[in-house]
Amino acid sequence: MVESQDHETVRALLDSVLTAGRSALTAPEGKIVADAYGIAVPGEELARDADEAVAFADRLGGPVVLKIVSPDVLHKTDAGGVVVGVEGGAQVRAAFQRIIENVQAYAPDARMDGVQVQQLVPPGREVIVGAVTDPTFGKVVAFGLGGVLVEVLKDITFRLAPVTADEALSMLDSIGAAEILRGVRGAPPVDRWALAEQIRRVSQLVTDFPEIAEVDLNPVIAAPDGAIAADIRILLATETVKQRRTYPREEILASMRRLMEPRSVAVIGASDEQGKIGNSVMRNLIDGGFSGEIHPVNPRADDILGRKTYRSVADVPGEVDVAVFAIPAKLVASALEEVGRKGIPNAVLIPSGFAETGEQALQDEIVAIGERYGVRLLGPNIYGYYSTWQDLCATFCTPYDVKGGVALTSQSGGIGMAILGFARSTKTGVSAIVGLGNKSDIDEDDLLTWFGEDPNTTCIAMHLEDLKDGRAFVEAARATVPKKPIVVLKAGRTSAGAKAAGSHTGALAGDDAVYDDILRQAGVIRAPGLNDMLEYARALPVLPTPKGDNVVIITGAGGSGVLLSDAIVDNGLSLMEIPPDLDAAFKAFIPPFGSAGNPIDITGGEPPSTYEATIRLGMEDPRIHALVLGYWHTIVTPPMVFAELTARVVAELRGRGIEKPVVASLAGDTEVEEASQYLFEHGVVAYPYTTEKPVAALGAKYRWARAAGLLGGDR
Amino acid sequence: MVESQDHETVRALLDSVLTAGRSALTAPEGKIVADAYGIAVPGEELARDADEAVAFADRLGGPVVLKIVSPDVLHKTDAGGVVVGVEGGAQVRAAFQRIIENVQAYAPDARMDGVQVQQLVPPGREVIVGAVTDPTFGKVVAFGLGGVLVEVLKDITFRLAPVTADEALSMLDSIGAAEILRGVRGAPPVDRWALAEQIRRVSQLVTDFPEIAEVDLNPVIAAPDGAIAADIRILLATETVKQRRTYPREEILASMRRLMEPRSVAVIGASDEQGKIGNSVMRNLIDGGFSGEIHPVNPRADDILGRKTYRSVADVPGEVDVAVFAIPAKLVASALEEVGRKGIPNAVLIPSGFAETGEQALQDEIVAIGERYGVRLLGPNIYGYYSTWQDLCATFCTPYDVKGGVALTSQSGGIGMAILGFARSTKTGVSAIVGLGNKSDIDEDDLLTWFGEDPNTTCIAMHLEDLKDGRAFVEAARATVPKKPIVVLKAGRTSAGAKAAGSHTGALAGDDAVYDDILRQAGVIRAPGLNDMLEYARALPVLPTPKGDNVVIITGAGGSGVLLSDAIVDNGLSLMEIPPDLDAAFKAFIPPFGSAGNPIDITGGEPPSTYEATIRLGMEDPRIHALVLGYWHTIVTPPMVFAELTARVVAELRGRGIEKPVVASLAGDTEVEEASQYLFEHGVVAYPYTTEKPVAALGAKYRWARAAGLLGGDR
Repeated sequence: MVESQDHETVRALLDSVLTAGRSALTAPEGKIVADAYGIAVPGEELARDADEAVAFADRLGGPVVLKIVSPDVLHKTDAGGVVVGVEGGAQVRAAFQRIIENVQAYAPDARMDGVQVQQLVPPGREVIVGAVTDPTFGKVVAFGLGGVLVEVLKDITFRLAPVTADEALSMLDSIGAAEILRGVRGAPPVDRWALAEQIRRVSQLVTDFPEIAEVDLNPVIAAPDGAIAADIRILLATETVKQRRTYPREEILASMRRLMEPRSVAVIGASDEQGKIGNSVMRNLIDGGFSGEIHPVNPRADDILGRKTYRSVADVPGEVDVAVFAIPAKLVASALEEVGRKGIPNAVLIPSGFAETGEQALQDEIVAIGERYGVRLLGPNIYGYYSTWQDLCATFCTPYDVKGGVALTSQSGGIGMAILGFARSTKTGVSAIVGLGNKSDIDEDDLLTWFGEDPNTTCIAMHLEDLKDGRAFVEAARATVPKKPIVVLKAGRTSAGAKAAGSHTGALAGDDAVYDDILRQAGVIRAPGLNDMLEYARALPVLPTPKGDNVVIITGAGGSGVLLSDAIVDNGLSLMEIPPDLDAAFKAFIPPFGSAGNPIDITGGEPPSTYEATIRLGMEDPRIHALVLGYWHTIVTPPMVFAELTARVVAELRGRGIEKPVVASLAGDTEVEEASQYLFEHGVVAYPYTTEKPVAALGAKYRWARAAGLLGGDR
Repeated sequence: MVESQDHETVRALLDSVLTAGRSALTAPEGKIVADAYGIAVPGEELARDADEAVAFADRLGGPVVLKIVSPDVLHKTDAGGVVVGVEGGAQVRAAFQRIIENVQAYAPDARMDGVQVQQLVPPGREVIVGAVTDPTFGKVVAFGLGGVLVEVLKDITFRLAPVTADEALSMLDSIGAAEILRGVRGAPPVDRWALAEQIRRVSQLVTDFPEIAEVDLNPVIAAPDGAIAADIRILLATETVKQRRTYPREEILASMRRLMEPRSVAVIGASDEQGKIGNSVMRNLIDGGFSGEIHPVNPRADDILGRKTYRSVADVPGEVDVAVFAIPAKLVASALEEVGRKGIPNAVLIPSGFAETGEQALQDEIVAIGERYGVRLLGPNIYGYYSTWQDLCATFCTPYDVKGGVALTSQSGGIGMAILGFARSTKTGVSAIVGLGNKSDIDEDDLLTWFGEDPNTTCIAMHLEDLKDGRAFVEAARATVPKKPIVVLKAGRTSAGAKAAGSHTGALAGDDAVYDDILRQAGVIRAPGLNDMLEYARALPVLPTPKGDNVVIITGAGGSGVLLSDAIVDNGLSLMEIPPDLDAAFKAFIPPFGSAGNPIDITGGEPPSTYEATIRLGMEDPRIHALVLGYWHTIVTPPMVFAELTARVVAELRGRGIEKPVVASLAGDTEVEEASQYLFEHGVVAYPYTTEKPVAALGAKYRWARAAGLLGGDR
């Protein structure tokens, strides 16, 4: 929408500012940029003397604001360089002179270009529109209400620039005080489209000119008919960010396929000696049941675990898809050269002793080798990786064998071990577990690209401390989310956490508010903690996708019903308003003192038939989209009886093509643990001793369904 | 501080208003009340004609506000009855006449007492001070910033009235935008003491006059030197709240002691027939190992489970402390009469079929019988109760036998069963489990009073949906918190949850914002969910009380360190700034690429000796007050090796009198589950696969320590 001519105006202006060695634009320069991009600002002129000021004020009409224009005065108010609301020749002249005197007193050496004479902006709601350059995500546009209260409450929202008009509009609803903009207590609503257009244009400006580091429209006055930026401040970057090497999607998929579905694996540093990583990896590959070729490489052995052993990877016959490194850090570079010459596309670098221990040079060296030969590097400083459907356990941890739909990745080895233990203990169905470690090359966006296509993967869960390239991640996430959910645990959320991330990986952790908004915008489900990530990963592939918003609670324990309702609200879900005919239908199954409505309280002493009849009705009625069950342990309906009848009804209806997410909270003695596990394995996400977890899992599924566009609503 | 004479002025005024059949005070009446209680309001006079208005305006000086005074016009602005900022005779006269004309046009029949002439309040920060009558807590005072933005963001705080000056002052820091009041962006701070004094006086006013239902000082203008209420609105209650019967503390303790430590128990409705509640209760009492007397009562049996059986409780020889009811609801009243005549102080009413099924009259009847004879009622509609140190299992659920420090209560039977199952599964040390059900008589404050004194109880955890008497609960909680922590799970937090609570128990669930502030004020630890309540209950008795704020993380997994730091901030804890000498001392034990500071990252491949040395240092250095451990499963230091060494160091130092809370997050394969359980049983709160739970437990302990006044800081 922005004309190329406007682009050239800005180009020329910025070049002249940069040539002059300045990094901040003056107000008149800011207005030139604003005008070029259609960013509405008040009419104004630069007056070089009092006579000009009087003439301009007269031409603009109405009251005006006078502001000093000086490259040496950034904080104009502090310098006494601003006078607001003068009208008529005498007032304007007096104000002009006062400003000049004030500034001379404040900064005697300041150069003065003149005094800006500006239309007084009409009254309206003060908001802020801005753009910053985030170290992870690059150009980011921001929106918030203006004023000191909002600053204190930090009520602001971010999006990747550029934004579309619709995205810009969604920002108006993403702040806590959104209601204000729609008009409260009789105040008129602001012009939402005009405001969104200001946001969109700012986002386009910083996208077109990467050297613009920061834009501040503060305040923008949003009125019922229009939005005008009362002040515009533009700062230029003094240094440029190094571009990261990127690969085309097809290349990523090709190498990732060979990594995750290899036919031939070489183990560099394979060993016969127990306790060595090269021995664990060999044994786990063999014991894991990998059916492809396994080639040990070790210059001092002929045979390891019954396999012919090669002195160098160069000697291995035929094509090799993956070289797993189990040798000390200082030997990696030369072995990687051989891997490159052999044309192996993937190197899995288990060894530590690189950037994470301060050996950045060693890491830079192997990255350069990888780029030279086109070898993609996983790691270094990782536990390895599993590809369960290939029975491939290329790690030093014992094989994981419950095949299923969730792919899990972690930046940290410790978290990787927690993933493994949790998955094994809960029998979580896993398609892959991948360690990313230092992320010298392969990172989350490569994996997302692959897992998005991988038919064995139906859900992706990632622990990360930073993103090397936030935009590539968002792009990969956006391409993946319509197909399958992505759960992210972003560590270093808080300032204390971010500090620890800094000391751990040397990576720059982004501001969490930016991460939060942009991950949400990308449709990612953010897990609040490690255990939440693990539970979402376990539950999401089990739950069918809901087809609408109507959630119904059926509970044997009234007390659970109350807590489940709390959880429904906490997770942004909707308790269905039960229509009268459906209410009557439920009432027919429950005791007269039970309560229909929602939650449906079938009461505690009921036999299995009451649970079954109400669950069946909940499944069959097409107006209900998801069920939350609250079970209460009694001798009339013991835990396993409840579990089996529920699993049976759900399976029977799935057989008839009726699929809905069903989650359950089991309150009772210890038998409810076995019953919950049974339910989980039969398609019902069930937990003992908690009303929060089952609803949180359902909430995560809903968040994904909404982001994937399966339920309507915005991302 | 308020003179009795003032009290009489208000008394007389309110009486006259009530006599006149009005429930809203006029502005001049509001000013009389304000003056009587020293609530600062602008100077003002009531002008009956324009001449008087001009004279008053002259006397008050400066600009004034004119407002209509009419008992028939409540919304003065809507009626055109307010003119702001007029000065001088001509302006005042014109404004007076305009108001009269506007009001006549707006409400032709309105009686008009005249026009109030009021000093214009000087500029300042707008805040709201108010008081309401909460159905649970009675008189409650509120404070928030003024203006529409705060209304939208619901940034407001509550306290029980009356408040002390210090409590009032604490309210200024309890709102999200507290910083505003301290002055930001160069704005001057408000006069905190003047503002607190307005709050305190309003709280005293509604306490002295219970018939005042609502007070609104809106806005109060808080300036750097004073705070003036620009408007005061007072509403009177038209109906009075029925007072609940209360018992003196000594009586509560005496009957509760006989309930929880009985020598003789009668079971009314004891039965030989398997599956009957009266059979389960008998068997559980006997199998549980209760050493006191057990007397079955059943008109149709002579012997039940080998015990002599009585036709009526009247026939039981000697004193009986507790009568457990296992008979249908409709038979309870007559049996309760016999219990009363026998002088038994406690009736445990297991049967359902009372208020919860709509049989309110039946419940009212038994409450009346209980009050007549002084029999305290537990229930009805409960699973019974356990008193583990007495081996007393007076319930229909199987006995619980891991004796320990935590007393758990629940309003709902389903939640009670979850408590039982969780406690059994995790081997939680329990002193009592009590069902409260319909709370027809005994409720949380009775139990708090007892558990506060009970030497076997070191922590109390309560699930509740409502409080029958919020003030009695707060009083009991305040008396208990200095001695032991109280954890509360308040169900029906959200509006959907509160609705379900209403339909379940017919109880009026209070507004959650009021509950939240007042429970915190009482020093109670609020659990966000069921599982949190259970985990806090399990962990708090295990953890020693911290003696200061300095928390240190020692971790083998850098990734866990980052997540643990996040959790530290989430839970309001403080990561210690490690002084240089201590940093050097830690560094001596860890590899050069490990990072001291905090978290202390000992790195992943370290042997047991590194964990031991750093944990020992953390325990021994008196500047450190709590330790958070992050364990990473390796073959060098397997899970049980870590668990045993940690337990040994902690025990050794406890032996030397050094006690600090230690919590641990274990990341690894499934062996970490056993290691976590071992640690828990040896005084270290440890969890597998989560970095959140151990820190949340530590956070709960800190919240209690702070509330109990053991750490300084406010409640």
